[in-house]
Amino acid sequence: MMNYQFADRVSELKPSIIREILKNSSEPGVIPFSAGNPAPEAFPAKEILEISQKILREQPIQALQYSITEGYTPLRNTITNHMQTHHQIGKDFDDTIITSGAQQVMNLASKVLCNEDDVIICESPSFIGSLNTFRSIKTKLHGISMEHDGMNLLELEKTLKQNTKVRMIYTIPNFQNPSGITMSLEKRKQLYQLAKQYHVIILEDNPYGDLRINGDTIPSIKSFDKDGIVIYAGSFSKVISPGMRIGFSIAPKPISQKMVVCKQADDVHSNILAQMICHILITEYHYENHLQHLRSIYRKKLELTISLIEEHLVPHGISYHKANGGLFVWCTLPANINMLEFCKKSANQKVCVVPGNAFLVDENASCQSFRINFSTPTDEQIVKGIATLGKIAKQMSN
Amino acid sequence: MMNYQFADRVSELKPSIIREILKNSSEPGVIPFSAGNPAPEAFPAKEILEISQKILREQPIQALQYSITEGYTPLRNTITNHMQTHHQIGKDFDDTIITSGAQQVMNLASKVLCNEDDVIICESPSFIGSLNTFRSIKTKLHGISMEHDGMNLLELEKTLKQNTKVRMIYTIPNFQNPSGITMSLEKRKQLYQLAKQYHVIILEDNPYGDLRINGDTIPSIKSFDKDGIVIYAGSFSKVISPGMRIGFSIAPKPISQKMVVCKQADDVHSNILAQMICHILITEYHYENHLQHLRSIYRKKLELTISLIEEHLVPHGISYHKANGGLFVWCTLPANINMLEFCKKSANQKVCVVPGNAFLVDENASCQSFRINFSTPTDEQIVKGIATLGKIAKQMSN
Repeated sequence: MMNYQFADRVSELKPSIIREILKNSSEPGVIPFSAGNPAPEAFPAKEILEISQKILREQPIQALQYSITEGYTPLRNTITNHMQTHHQIGKDFDDTIITSGAQQVMNLASKVLCNEDDVIICESPSFIGSLNTFRSIKTKLHGISMEHDGMNLLELEKTLKQNTKVRMIYTIPNFQNPSGITMSLEKRKQLYQLAKQYHVIILEDNPYGDLRINGDTIPSIKSFDKDGIVIYAGSFSKVISPGMRIGFSIAPKPISQKMVVCKQADDVHSNILAQMICHILITEYHYENHLQHLRSIYRKKLELTISLIEEHLVPHGISYHKANGGLFVWCTLPANINMLEFCKKSANQKVCVVPGNAFLVDENASCQSFRINFSTPTDEQIVKGIATLGKIAKQMSN
Repeated sequence: MMNYQFADRVSELKPSIIREILKNSSEPGVIPFSAGNPAPEAFPAKEILEISQKILREQPIQALQYSITEGYTPLRNTITNHMQTHHQIGKDFDDTIITSGAQQVMNLASKVLCNEDDVIICESPSFIGSLNTFRSIKTKLHGISMEHDGMNLLELEKTLKQNTKVRMIYTIPNFQNPSGITMSLEKRKQLYQLAKQYHVIILEDNPYGDLRINGDTIPSIKSFDKDGIVIYAGSFSKVISPGMRIGFSIAPKPISQKMVVCKQADDVHSNILAQMICHILITEYHYENHLQHLRSIYRKKLELTISLIEEHLVPHGISYHKANGGLFVWCTLPANINMLEFCKKSANQKVCVVPGNAFLVDENASCQSFRINFSTPTDEQIVKGIATLGKIAKQMSN
């Protein structure tokens, strides 16, 4: 066999720890707090069956033939109108393009804007999938610590002042993965001003925005964008189906055009039947009712999770961030419990959580936190799993 | 508005000329010889309707939920078995992964193996989509001229000897796009030996192999691979549906593993419903009969096209390569007709062909050829379109 020489960009790239854990977490009997899958009961499966039949009966050729890279025009128009009407997102200088999941927005945006060794600022902790796509083009990541209301902006400003290679700030402002933190309106406005001042692009990733279960919606950073400095990444993975792999970006036209050229080289276009299904589901199927239904599912599951954390984990010194939506609860162990040891012991007892260091820029940095996902496990699994975590914490405290 | 600074890798990347022409070619009244779409009558639309209903009724959660990056396991196993049984492709050291169209195989393979400024050898002319994906990671392309039986191997060997930065040889051995040329068995074997001798990986792209309409199948280069030096790219775009965006690679495990890590960062996984549809179509729906049916459609269309070229174009000094399959006929104008002028005049008369220089490593090099696609236009359009091309050639010869 040949001794393979790989490109520099992949020589240090490792498989996502979450995906590796996820592989085991689908084994029978395992309680999958480590996943990030939507709850099975949240899928509009009946509607998708009905819509796909209609499409494949009435427009089979369009659904099966090559399409254009920018995406299915009716879906692009629907998203543009929906986001303008409901979220004040998108100006005349913006364009909407359809991507193969929101992950591809992070991939295209960073490829288009960042050279090797340019710096992307991210929240620390942050979503490992995005961090890996930034790593795959050999950008440098710089993490900014998180406060209860979002990034530490003093730290951000200091970094922007000192580091002239910063090209982009990556943020998940709503119910951040993994921390569950939502950035306050004040910080969103300040972040926008800082990005403007330092000529840096903001990449605003909002997969969970529609899954708010408490409190009022906070305007997105993109809604303030008068200068064409924000790329908004949207996703149907959490609200329709992740298996379809349909996301979108709303970004200034010059950036969108470059992203389209890159996408053409990467995968030509996204699955067209899935794009047509999303279009019909949004326009003809009471989409707002569907979102309400999702929120009621996740409200119940989050409230159950939090009541169990209060009962079984808090008494052993574990603290947590009370998220107002999203799919995750971020828990922090007291100093006397070793986090990796705790996660390993839990996995041995078939309860899988994700060790917090997986979400750090430097995975070897010390971390006392772990992430619990409450959308994938059943209610019974949540009850049993958190009780087990509590027992392990109790043992380890002694 | 901000003055955007783009990354070096995209600053010179242009939209594919074919895609740009294709946009116009879908205008009403245009005869689309410029496309590369499968014939609408070639889609197994009824079967896909039936299968998708079955899947969404019986396994809705699996079809809509997140899946693994490597691809849907039953489809991977089906492809592995099918390719071993029917094409002697795939050894124990290989692995099959599912991609978002075969385009993604070229993208992942080049990203995994080539640094910026490394060299990829390709046939000249070659498929513009692949050339653009190689360009998008800033590799250098080196074109090798084509003979009636494939690459000029003396030129190839000279290049391999002189250029130590060559990492990969990209070839479409069957009914090459755009030339229609099929590489002979002798040349396939010699190419393999040269790659082995110079420690270079072969990327064998075979989207049209199942569309042979004359003569015997020639073994693929991958079928000789005892040394783990060939990456095979397969596609369902021409035989099932391009809109689904499902392709696959069969490659040595160390390379496949790196490709999976990259794919995870790029788009997580490919549309899962489409993967499940392909799996059932191949295993339960007389796939070989379906391929026979496709061949009969394309045999008829290719024979019609060639008879019309003989009648209308050959008398004006236009030569062509008689392909034994695939979707394209490559025509070459006599020296007294300016090729770009000819293509423009044709487009003005609503007959769209692709100027041959679009397929060259250097798009500004001179070229007398143009590409005709016979799968997209109807038979009536083929008759009318080639007669029009003949009239234009006649005018321009005078």
